[in-house]
Formats: sequence, C-alpha cells, structure tokens
Amino acid sequence: MPPAPDTALSSPETDDADTQTIVTSGIQPSGRLHLGNYFGAIRRHIALQKEAHEALYFIVNYHAMTTVQDPEALREHTLDVALDYLALGLDPDEATLFVQSDVPQVAELTWVFLNLLPTSRLEKGVAYKEKVAEGLTPNAGLFTYPVLQAADILAYDAPPAGAELRVPVGRDQRQNIEVARDVARRFNNTFCEKGAPLFPVPEAEILDDVATVPGLDGRKMSKSYDNTIGIFDEGDTLEEKVYSIVTDSAPLDEPKDPEADNVFALIKLFAPDEKREEIAEQYRAGGYGYGHAKDALLGMIEAHFAKARQRRKELVEREDYVRDVLREGAKKARERAEALMAKVRKRVGLVTSA
Amino acid sequence: MPPAPDTALSSPETDDADTQTIVTSGIQPSGRLHLGNYFGAIRRHIALQKEAHEALYFIVNYHAMTTVQDPEALREHTLDVALDYLALGLDPDEATLFVQSDVPQVAELTWVFLNLLPTSRLEKGVAYKEKVAEGLTPNAGLFTYPVLQAADILAYDAPPAGAELRVPVGRDQRQNIEVARDVARRFNNTFCEKGAPLFPVPEAEILDDVATVPGLDGRKMSKSYDNTIGIFDEGDTLEEKVYSIVTDSAPLDEPKDPEADNVFALIKLFAPDEKREEIAEQYRAGGYGYGHAKDALLGMIEAHFAKARQRRKELVEREDYVRDVLREGAKKARERAEALMAKVRKRVGLVTSA
Repeated sequence: MPPAPDTALSSPETDDADTQTIVTSGIQPSGRLHLGNYFGAIRRHIALQKEAHEALYFIVNYHAMTTVQDPEALREHTLDVALDYLALGLDPDEATLFVQSDVPQVAELTWVFLNLLPTSRLEKGVAYKEKVAEGLTPNAGLFTYPVLQAADILAYDAPPAGAELRVPVGRDQRQNIEVARDVARRFNNTFCEKGAPLFPVPEAEILDDVATVPGLDGRKMSKSYDNTIGIFDEGDTLEEKVYSIVTDSAPLDEPKDPEADNVFALIKLFAPDEKREEIAEQYRAGGYGYGHAKDALLGMIEAHFAKARQRRKELVEREDYVRDVLREGAKKARERAEALMAKVRKRVGLVTSA
Repeated sequence: MPPAPDTALSSPETDDADTQTIVTSGIQPSGRLHLGNYFGAIRRHIALQKEAHEALYFIVNYHAMTTVQDPEALREHTLDVALDYLALGLDPDEATLFVQSDVPQVAELTWVFLNLLPTSRLEKGVAYKEKVAEGLTPNAGLFTYPVLQAADILAYDAPPAGAELRVPVGRDQRQNIEVARDVARRFNNTFCEKGAPLFPVPEAEILDDVATVPGLDGRKMSKSYDNTIGIFDEGDTLEEKVYSIVTDSAPLDEPKDPEADNVFALIKLFAPDEKREEIAEQYRAGGYGYGHAKDALLGMIEAHFAKARQRRKELVEREDYVRDVLREGAKKARERAEALMAKVRKRVGLVTSA
C-alpha cells in the first residue's frame, strides 16, 4: 500500500542542524491543484514546515489580482487553496497559514521598496517581457509584481541572528528572488548603518521538478494543456481521466517497455520500490495490458489521497475552522509585519514622532 | 495696513450653493515655503477649507520618498510644513490635516489600482518622461507616483450623492488628475454594477498662478533659482534679501516706471489698491528711490506675516499640540479610508469571509 499523505509529506532531507531557517512561501490561488503541482512542489513545500525553524505560508491574492479581475473566482480560489493545503497536511501548529491581503503592511512595504528600484530593473522581468513580446500591454501590477514579492519575503521581521531566510521556489521564480535580494541590500545600504542591516538577504531554495509528471496526453501535466488529473478528482471524473491516458496500441499479451509508457510514469510516483519493480516485471513479461496498469494506477491514486480527500470533505463542512486558521495566521503575521514596518518607517523617515 | 493673514486667506470666490464639495489636497514636505508658493497656491489652498463642505489636507511623505532618501530631512520637512500651514491659517476645526503615511490604506489602494492601469499609461507621465529624457533611470516609485496620487484622492470614501470631489492643483498636475479619473472609471467599470459606481470621478480645480511672483533676480521665484524670500524669513535674513532685489540703476530723483520694477511687482501682491496706487504715483513722480520702495516692501512683508510668524513660534513651542492635530487628523482619515477599503476589498474579491 502506498504511503498515506502524512508520511508522503515528510521529507528525508534535513537542514544543517546548526542553522535555523525561516521559510516564507507564497501559494497561488489559481484553482484546483493537480498531480503535476503535487509532485512538482506542494509535497516538498509542505514538508518544509517540519524542517524549518519557522514557516510562513500565504495565499497570494494580491498577486493574483495582476491577472484575475473576477472577484467571485478570486474569493473561491483563495479559500479552495487553503482547504487543499490543509487537507494535504499543512499543519497550522507547525506553520503559519494566512491570506496575503490580511496583512496590508506588505502593500506599504511595497511602496517603500518601489523607491529603491530603478524601473530598468523591473523591465527585465521575465513575465513582463513575455507580455511585451506578445504585443500585449501588461498592467502596472504585473510590472511591479516582483517588488510585492520582495515585500512578502521581507515583511516578517528579521530571523534571529545567524538564521537564514529561505524561499522555496520553482526555477522560474529565481529572477524574482534576485529582486528581493537586491531590494534588501539596497535598503540596508541606504538606510542602515554599516554592519547593522535591517533585512536579511533571502536565499532562494530552488525546488527542482525532480518528478516529471506526464499529463493524460503524455505532455507535461499542465492546466494550459488541459491534460491534468486533479488531486481531489474522484469517482467517475477520476476514472474517466485515468482510462483516457494515452498509451501505444500494443496488444495485451505482448511484452511492453514500462519506461516508455505514461501510465507507468505515473505509477512510479506513487508506488514504493518493491511494488514498482513488480509492475515493471509484469509489463516486460507480457500478458499485462494497459487496462491493468490503469486499474493499478487508479487504486494507487485513490489510496494515496484517500485521507487527504476525506479531510478536505470534513474541512468543507467546517468552514468556520478554516476561517479561524486563516484569521489566527493573519493575526500572527500582521503582528510581525507591523513590528517590522515600525522599524522601516523609522529608518526611512516616515515617522514624525521622535 | 495690509490685511492680516486670516483675512488674506479667506477667498472672495464661493461655490455654487447647490453643490457640496469635498476637497483633497496633498502638501509636499519640501522644506521652507517662500512667497512664490504662498501667492501661487498656499493662500488659495488654505482658503478652500472654508469654501468646501469638507477639506482633507495631507503631507505627502510617501510621495516625497520618490526623491528623498534622507530620513532626517524627510522627518523634519514633514513637521515643518505642518507648522507652516497651521501658522498660515489652516484650521484643524475646518479641515482635516494629517501625514500621508499615517493612513497606510492608501498604499493598499495603490496596489489595487496598479492592476487597473497599463504600464503604457504611466510611461506617458511627464515627470517620468523628463527623467528618461535626461538620460536618468527613474525609480519605480516615481513611475507609479500618479497611482499613489489617485489612491490619495480616492481613499476617503465617496462624497454624499450629488457632491463633487475636487482636487485643487497646479497646471503641472493636471495629467496626474487624469490618471485618477481614469482609475476611478476603470474600477467602476470592472468591479461595480452599472449605475452603482463606487468611486466618484474627481474634478481637477486648476489653481492658476494668477500672481506672478518675481524672485530676487527678477526671474520667477523658485527654490531651484535660489532667488526666494521665505515666508518665515525675518530680521537680518529678510532685510538682506529684500535689499538685494535686482533693480535698474536709475538715480533717486528720476521718474520710474513701477510696472517695470521687481520691487513694485512684489509690493503689488501685498498692498491694498489705494496704497498700491499711492506708491505707483511716487515711482512716476521721481524723488522716490528703490531703497524707499524696498523699505516699504519690507514693512509690508513683516506686517502681512507678523501674525503667522508669531503663531509659528508659539506652535514650535507646542509641538505636542501639533502632533495631536496630526494624530487626530490621521485617526479621522484612517477611519474613512478603512471604511472605503472594506468596500474595495469586497468588490475585488480580497475578502474571503462572506
């Protein structure tokens, strides 16, 4: 039997025991999560709550506004992704979970940071340049997106001396973390005495997509290809999707190469070593059809996410609890952000009282 | 005798009695004010407190950050300009005076607005284009300056139905008010039902520099020409400045053309009609030298600002009172901005609770 979500979520990697780390991490409220998200990042993401000295997770609804102008969708997706993460094992006792806009101090810090960055720095932003290359005119929110992200990362007060501020991100986010590092240094150079910086320079922790997750059509699983299997898909929807995974047309009794098959690529993500080997043998032996493999995969998906799905259903019924978690998280985050902003305001001269 | 400040500050113009108006107005904390500022805008500016149904004045220290990176200077200038305005007749019972950064809701609203404006709209900004033309790279704060200004104007909740939101500004600010009008319309179109807009479309009230105020060298009085007479200059400093005003070299007994003289141009600003005519006669008659004219001007400046200077000295001694005024003003402004932001958050989908 595949590991239950909780076990799957704990990570074998550990930190250097001497370094305390604080992890801050933004979660996009971009609708239903799929297996590609899960094996690509979420699993590792959630695992960090135990590794880090402290972890702050926030649902970045301010950021989402750069592309979403549908209030209903934004509201729903924000709550949905909170449910998803809590169901998948994010533990409010281990990590602080909140909604970005419940800590408006980040908007204030964004204004402070905007004055430290030349526009030329932001014109190099990949997402911005892509839009321009497509002949589109991006809005000013997209243009300043990396500055808001820098504020997100740096708003929660400095970690204790010697500790590290780590930001687990995909490779495509490396450039934005560079902006945050740049902003932190510029602020320290401009407004702090030498040797007494206010901001730590954050470290990007690149979460490589170790797991390649193929979609139903064999291409990378991605919402834009419409080839996803949702983490919380079940019943007919899930079955239909699994049985529609594209395979070659080798007949049942012919021996098959497991490494050339999409179904097996997905099985590998779920099956423990022994089970994986057993199925690979069956592929190679012949007499094992893709239908059999799909049956096996379906069972694994269901077993792997059974607990998470169950928990999600319970959480949907306990919306008050979810709101409490978000409210409590926001309260903690706001206190920290306010403490940091009090220092920032003083350093830049926004405070008029002595 | 020239009118005392209070009288000078009341304006002969009145509103259409049927229209209630709300006036919002940013005050730059850019150091000591001079006669050019006073006759160009401040006088009219302060007069609006009585004309408008309601007036909000804020010292724009967030905006100042786009060019000032000296915390001491920013702090000092912020307080100085509060003292200046209070001394010159801004009445906390008539108008709400506060410091911009004490209402961080405007930074939050700025983020919302950034997502409604294409960057191309901001690239047309005059201040931004000027910097670029000079070969400089402006910072992102300067680039987004008009968006913050739009937030300033629109943050204090809608005026009652039928009322107008007026923004008294110099001609050079007209473009920024256009951005605010544009943002208001875009928000209403995107997030409000037809016929139920959230934001009023603000009206620019262009304060024309009716009064041309020459500086010591005859060019327009401006800090950048270093040719100013400060409103609160006095004693030797003031005398030295007045006696250094450039005139032609006509000898004492020769008749002079008052309209061709800088000293007379300044006298005209202070002297009531009768007195002005009397001095003009003396110019034309001959036997009246520039030294006499400067004596007269000096007396007028001193008389005109005597009360304001006295009040400023008292206020410097009562810094607690000034801070109380700013604190009270900020509290009132914050309550209004928070009420407005609650509506904004709901409309754009930033609120997750129903």
